[in-house]
Amino acid sequence: MSIEKVARFAGVSTATVSRVLNGYKGVRPATRERVLAAIAACQYQPNLLARQLRTSQSRMLLVLVSNIINPFCSRVVRGIEAEAEAHGYHILLCNSDSQTQRESAYLTLLSGKVVDGVITMDAASNLPELRKMIGDSPWIQCAEGNPDMTGSSVTIDNQQAARKAVQHLAQRGRRRIAMINGDPRYFYAQQRESGYRSALAELDLPWSGVEYANEVECEAGFAAMKRLLEAEEPPDAVFTVSDVLAVGAMHCARQHQLTIPQDLAVLGFDGLPWSAMLSPPLSTLEQPMHQLGTRSVQLLLQRIKNPLAPQVHERLPCQLVARASS
Amino acid sequence: MSIEKVARFAGVSTATVSRVLNGYKGVRPATRERVLAAIAACQYQPNLLARQLRTSQSRMLLVLVSNIINPFCSRVVRGIEAEAEAHGYHILLCNSDSQTQRESAYLTLLSGKVVDGVITMDAASNLPELRKMIGDSPWIQCAEGNPDMTGSSVTIDNQQAARKAVQHLAQRGRRRIAMINGDPRYFYAQQRESGYRSALAELDLPWSGVEYANEVECEAGFAAMKRLLEAEEPPDAVFTVSDVLAVGAMHCARQHQLTIPQDLAVLGFDGLPWSAMLSPPLSTLEQPMHQLGTRSVQLLLQRIKNPLAPQVHERLPCQLVARASS
Repeated sequence: MSIEKVARFAGVSTATVSRVLNGYKGVRPATRERVLAAIAACQYQPNLLARQLRTSQSRMLLVLVSNIINPFCSRVVRGIEAEAEAHGYHILLCNSDSQTQRESAYLTLLSGKVVDGVITMDAASNLPELRKMIGDSPWIQCAEGNPDMTGSSVTIDNQQAARKAVQHLAQRGRRRIAMINGDPRYFYAQQRESGYRSALAELDLPWSGVEYANEVECEAGFAAMKRLLEAEEPPDAVFTVSDVLAVGAMHCARQHQLTIPQDLAVLGFDGLPWSAMLSPPLSTLEQPMHQLGTRSVQLLLQRIKNPLAPQVHERLPCQLVARASS
Repeated sequence: MSIEKVARFAGVSTATVSRVLNGYKGVRPATRERVLAAIAACQYQPNLLARQLRTSQSRMLLVLVSNIINPFCSRVVRGIEAEAEAHGYHILLCNSDSQTQRESAYLTLLSGKVVDGVITMDAASNLPELRKMIGDSPWIQCAEGNPDMTGSSVTIDNQQAARKAVQHLAQRGRRRIAMINGDPRYFYAQQRESGYRSALAELDLPWSGVEYANEVECEAGFAAMKRLLEAEEPPDAVFTVSDVLAVGAMHCARQHQLTIPQDLAVLGFDGLPWSAMLSPPLSTLEQPMHQLGTRSVQLLLQRIKNPLAPQVHERLPCQLVARASS
């Protein structure tokens, strides 16, 4: 067999050649170099597909994300990829735009054994249909998760985070606290709105105002803020579900000659590094973005190893960071 | 054969079932639904790996990106994925951090026929080694491309873009124009620095100052700006190679009690949507990010179809957008 020839040529065991081919860690750089040189010298073409067919393991994970240009998503995906790579797995990326038709094309890869498992970051409203397509395959819901679904999840407590946001703005003396929310097909958006409304009720603040951004881009935050500011009773504070939306909201406030935070307090969500360097620096709810990704992979690999492992619904901590914008 | 059973059940041809399984466009949603229902009813498990082995086509493309959390990268990758999906291809994403060891693990997927081709967005300094690993496989250099390498490329004219930046700042009366550059192992960084220096020479501006950001995060832009401002002769303008770095530079200037643009003019790069909504709005060089991605896929698919197609080096236009920061 050819792999033995490569091993002899490199002066290593066939197991070591196999480790290099599989991209596992724990092979010393010098050894890896020698094996790669031997592969080139022997013109060895490992047929990975044939091997996957033999072992019925592809060592590939499918990641369904609504849109990678949302910086929250790209940071979670970075965590997913880093952890996957550390375990010798690769990731297939699907931007679904939350369209199940796009997702269905990808999910045939699962039934076709091209991928060993799936991590979804997609809207909860799609989950019942996705669930049907995924069947009994290993699956983790990441960042966006419905605990009532079968299928483990790693999320934050979105309801609690939104309550913290409202409580913070109320403590700063705000009475008309508005919310710029995301697409209400998302469970996170539903949960954050529910937390927002229950906090207002608890604090005896009767005024409420919710506008929805149709995408996580600053233009959508700008448009939502415009609707709020041009209403009969404009808000004196706004809680947005993304730092990206907050950038648009702050820009809109400035165009309306409002000073932040005196005339309008602004609070973001996610804790993107640049939120600290805006003018004024943006208060925000900091999510553990990288960790949401790494933890999802750890749970998925456990599930691939043991398909009968019990379902878990983990909630990672989320922290309010108060800065000059509120 | 099972696929025939599915076709009979759905009342369509086997070719249509195959189109649905392959995720091709051009199947009507209602027909797709019927086929998917038939697949579920017949409990059909298409063995995609076996099929890939038979056709020696995986319909997967490998994308090597240094770091997806750079918003420039995530927007290019979005374009890549959109165009790939439109042609029935899926993408495997590798965050290399420009480490060839990470990349080598992925590139075994190429020799193993798990992927049909590669798009690299990685540092030019790695290209000779990558080139060796890629061999004769279909390959496109995207955004970061050395025209001297065999292997087609889709880029902007980085040298010309940097000249435009310096000319613009000089027209605004600036005499001490500094540059915050990226990792000099990148061809784009080398080319932009060369454009910067040649424009200074042409305009007879003897002062120059270049600092390097070790990553594309605002903190690195802040640190580079700090070094420039605390030097004996601080600049009166700064050209940064990313809008993300510019956010850090502006924050640092404000901390030094400087007003933008009166005391320091700032110019970014990339044209991320939120650059228009910063305070003050950021002047920038707008790159066609989505199009860099889509065009790379088009060229790669041509190459997969015809491995003997001539090499091309396409340059897409890049536009200076002047705003209040300069």
